[in-house]
Amino acid sequence: MDQCVFCKIIKGEIPSSKVYEDEKVVAFNDINPEAPVHVLIVPKIHVQSILELDEAGYNIIAHVFKVASNIAKNLKLDEKGFRIVNNIGEDGGQTVPHIHFHLLGGRSLQWPPG
Amino acid sequence: MDQCVFCKIIKGEIPSSKVYEDEKVVAFNDINPEAPVHVLIVPKIHVQSILELDEAGYNIIAHVFKVASNIAKNLKLDEKGFRIVNNIGEDGGQTVPHIHFHLLGGRSLQWPPG
Repeated sequence: MDQCVFCKIIKGEIPSSKVYEDEKVVAFNDINPEAPVHVLIVPKIHVQSILELDEAGYNIIAHVFKVASNIAKNLKLDEKGFRIVNNIGEDGGQTVPHIHFHLLGGRSLQWPPG
Repeated sequence: MDQCVFCKIIKGEIPSSKVYEDEKVVAFNDINPEAPVHVLIVPKIHVQSILELDEAGYNIIAHVFKVASNIAKNLKLDEKGFRIVNNIGEDGGQTVPHIHFHLLGGRSLQWPPG
């Protein structure tokens, strides 16, 4: 946890291009964007993935999707659409072991999703 | 809503290969799987996407992720990992206008996610 890059961003020890923050989550632009809009929405609690959440933790996911909806509306993605992706573990392509959600938009996302 | 294919599946008017069901969601295998495991988790309320949810609706998303975690554990995907994808609108690649979440696993999911 002391070495977690997302915890360091949450604490302000590593700079990020923040688009939103509240007491439960922070959202910032992905440093390796895969779309014109590529925002990471990161719960402030340090857990590796959804597999480790308790009841209160799952409620944060509800909040993540509310925040995602608001970010999408603010960025005018609500008309054309967007995609939200959550990677869990190696097969999922998770590269940072701190739960996070990718919001991608601004282009036509293809299928399959990876 | 009368013509919604997912509402028809929920009502049992169209058959599906169900893997889970409770009062809030149904989960069944995607008829066009893009991975060895490709399950759709579908809230029973008919809304087009997360953009239309109210407070109670967002709580269903928390439930969706709890169900996804349980399905992943039952299918032994928790060790190697998996991906959850939510498509919103045309750019997101949403093909059925009833909110749903893709759970994909059993292979190494690639990046970018579409």
